[in-house]
Amino acid sequence: MQETLPVLLRALGQRIRELRLAQGYSQEAFADKCGVHRTFMGTVERGESNVSFQNIVKVAQTLGVSLAVLFTDLESAAEKLKRTAPPPPRTKKTSEK
Amino acid sequence: MQETLPVLLRALGQRIRELRLAQGYSQEAFADKCGVHRTFMGTVERGESNVSFQNIVKVAQTLGVSLAVLFTDLESAAEKLKRTAPPPPRTKKTSEK
Repeated sequence: MQETLPVLLRALGQRIRELRLAQGYSQEAFADKCGVHRTFMGTVERGESNVSFQNIVKVAQTLGVSLAVLFTDLESAAEKLKRTAPPPPRTKKTSEK
Repeated sequence: MQETLPVLLRALGQRIRELRLAQGYSQEAFADKCGVHRTFMGTVERGESNVSFQNIVKVAQTLGVSLAVLFTDLESAAEKLKRTAPPPPRTKKTSEK
């Protein structure tokens, strides 16, 4: 579970970005319309922000899609993302003596 | 948008509660399995907590349902909730002179 969250967040961010671009919004215009800060929207789209339900609702409503549509097959998208763009390998701790 | 959020949160809480009960979990056992605090799960089920994506994922994974399933027709459920159990009416401000 701990491992899937970051990639699910990245998949959600990508999904939001795709839907936003399909509707011709710049990231800034979209953030303004959602009523969130522009830099915050950047972190959401990069999957860096553990976005709240409130902000997910704002995004869905601004995009004019249902929550179910926003989340459709997000798990598959995350799996695909994991295969095509794996996260950087963990650095090994040097063993302590 | 501001008006629909509280009722969407309540609808999400009800949905989680229904799915949890259908799987025979007590609220406490379910919270433990999700790895969240028991009182927090109570606030989520009552729609009092602006739950984060991370915790939504934990809930969905513990229930063994996809995010899309968790959110299916949530907007309709919220609408129904609004009609059957409307929020208390706003108190009117006395007009200032």
